[in-house]
Amino acid sequence: MTGPRAARLETVRARMAELEIDVLLLSLGADLPWLTGYEAMPLERLTMLVVPREDLPTLVVPRLEAPRVDEDPEVFRIRSWGEQDDPVQIVAALSSLAGSVKEVAVSDRAWATFVLALQATLPGAYWRPASAVTGPLRAVKDEEEIAALVAASAAADRVAAQLLAGDIALSGRTEREVSQEIGRRLIAEGHQKVNFAIVGSGPNSASPHHDAGSRVIQPGEPVVCDFGGTMDGYCSDITRTVWTGEPTTEQRDLYDVVREAQSAGVAAALVGATCEGVDTAARAVITDAGYGDAFIHRTGHGIGLEEHEDPYIVEGNETPIVEGHAFSVEPGIYLPGRFGTRIEDIVVVGRSGPLALNHVTHDLTVVSA
Amino acid sequence: MTGPRAARLETVRARMAELEIDVLLLSLGADLPWLTGYEAMPLERLTMLVVPREDLPTLVVPRLEAPRVDEDPEVFRIRSWGEQDDPVQIVAALSSLAGSVKEVAVSDRAWATFVLALQATLPGAYWRPASAVTGPLRAVKDEEEIAALVAASAAADRVAAQLLAGDIALSGRTEREVSQEIGRRLIAEGHQKVNFAIVGSGPNSASPHHDAGSRVIQPGEPVVCDFGGTMDGYCSDITRTVWTGEPTTEQRDLYDVVREAQSAGVAAALVGATCEGVDTAARAVITDAGYGDAFIHRTGHGIGLEEHEDPYIVEGNETPIVEGHAFSVEPGIYLPGRFGTRIEDIVVVGRSGPLALNHVTHDLTVVSA
Repeated sequence: MTGPRAARLETVRARMAELEIDVLLLSLGADLPWLTGYEAMPLERLTMLVVPREDLPTLVVPRLEAPRVDEDPEVFRIRSWGEQDDPVQIVAALSSLAGSVKEVAVSDRAWATFVLALQATLPGAYWRPASAVTGPLRAVKDEEEIAALVAASAAADRVAAQLLAGDIALSGRTEREVSQEIGRRLIAEGHQKVNFAIVGSGPNSASPHHDAGSRVIQPGEPVVCDFGGTMDGYCSDITRTVWTGEPTTEQRDLYDVVREAQSAGVAAALVGATCEGVDTAARAVITDAGYGDAFIHRTGHGIGLEEHEDPYIVEGNETPIVEGHAFSVEPGIYLPGRFGTRIEDIVVVGRSGPLALNHVTHDLTVVSA
Repeated sequence: MTGPRAARLETVRARMAELEIDVLLLSLGADLPWLTGYEAMPLERLTMLVVPREDLPTLVVPRLEAPRVDEDPEVFRIRSWGEQDDPVQIVAALSSLAGSVKEVAVSDRAWATFVLALQATLPGAYWRPASAVTGPLRAVKDEEEIAALVAASAAADRVAAQLLAGDIALSGRTEREVSQEIGRRLIAEGHQKVNFAIVGSGPNSASPHHDAGSRVIQPGEPVVCDFGGTMDGYCSDITRTVWTGEPTTEQRDLYDVVREAQSAGVAAALVGATCEGVDTAARAVITDAGYGDAFIHRTGHGIGLEEHEDPYIVEGNETPIVEGHAFSVEPGIYLPGRFGTRIEDIVVVGRSGPLALNHVTHDLTVVSA
């Protein structure tokens, strides 16, 4: 009998064979914890799992971090290194055990400094990002992973419901204060970590990745709140736009367009459609309303162990949607210098259709607080 | 008249010329904020500053993040890219404006996926890490940076003093609870961000990078607390080992050795010595006491915008120590399965000698809490 990680290792190896990759090198990012349960420290001492095509993988880890690792004899062994060792040489030697290395895949987020050193030590190899192997595998969530996403989304929903209910004061406070309060509430609702809490008020609502700053929120303006965290390893991500007073007719109309676009995107998230198709469905609503140029980002991104991962819901991505894909649907309209609005839910694709994991209303909400 | 960032750009270019580097590409990590004041988001949309040998640098940034950037016409211009653009092609084109590119330096922490794509787009170039250019420059702190390090260390000192005074309950609580309380206190004392708060109790004190976990701290055992955060951009880092009851004679003896080693390391941090020399000075004390094999890590690391940066205080690093170097001196002794101890202060090298930035006592402290 094999554990879930041993089963993942099997699928990884099948895909390595398919892509003719001799060795997979995993360091920073979510591939390593997905496969081993261990997350590398983002420091200058190299941690790297060497996955050959056949033999048991080896986790090369700094000696002073080795006690943090729980070995899993079905999935990997540990090779710790001391301060006078060269971990790059160790990884290169482990990679070459079965002969000369022609094709290598390395964690997308591995540091450049290690990739360059490894390239010098394994000359002549062709390198590509590990997501070529793991992206499509990790994009399809199993039942346990979906349960974790459901739980994280529910926790984020509770904070969004508090926002819409006026429990989080807005007018008269700085964006930063509101952002910090949202962060505290994400933790209080069960997240271990806050990944981001964007609060863009008034003209700042027109900047999709706005840093919550020192601007004091005024009455009668839109506030885009986009926040999420990590709970038991899996990420949440939700956006609601609320008003601190009666919106203008233009703002109401624009909000209606975004709401309709968001629904259209979700409705298109069907097995057999493409990722691009979901983007097109949401974008068409906004373009038809005359705001096409003001929807300046893709419609969404996959979500799981990482806040952004495969599959990306963007023009040009012809990946077919399959059961178990989980991603955000988050169209927006941004009028620079004036205002913007965005609505975002996480969706999991089921056999019989899309399942939204966020359940907080999309009705335009005026928060009297 | 030029600002401090324009002055930094001058020194960067002088060093690029010296190393014959045609273009410097800065993305994740502290080089970019050090030079521009802007920190790239660690996401899959590429942000990269292209620094040619002569022309004004260009910051290639996702369109939806461009509003977060304050342009500095003395140091860089902005080139934003939309969801249908290929940022790698844009960076490659900007890199090649002055002709074919032979030598490229790229941020040490840039993601592998972007480095691999750029290598394919700029074939034949020789690549090395940006720290070859920026490491020695950033390692030497100016007055303003030293003031920031002093302030961050003082804030960490206040938390360490609270720990030694028994304000932070230890016995009967889990390591994780204590770690979280230390984190809250780092924020309360002025840090914007907690970088780590290691709490290793009893046998866990023998694991230098122990994750604070579910172990309940017992009376009468050593607790290694190693914590730090970021305050106004600069990092703090301090370690104290405290006891929750009377230590054994062996523990007292071992603590005395570590304390003496720490002092010897600091005393060796003189202009004209080498980084390796500081390591040797601390290590000799521990080796002479018979614990050489139990001091399993280097003596220290540089500190500044990053928690670990040049210069590293490690055997083999013959870099001469100069005025303005800032680094940790943190020897330790670890007896696996039994206990360990470590003492760490940050030191800045002045013209007339080393200046410790942490001032909390090194006396063995029994915390009655």
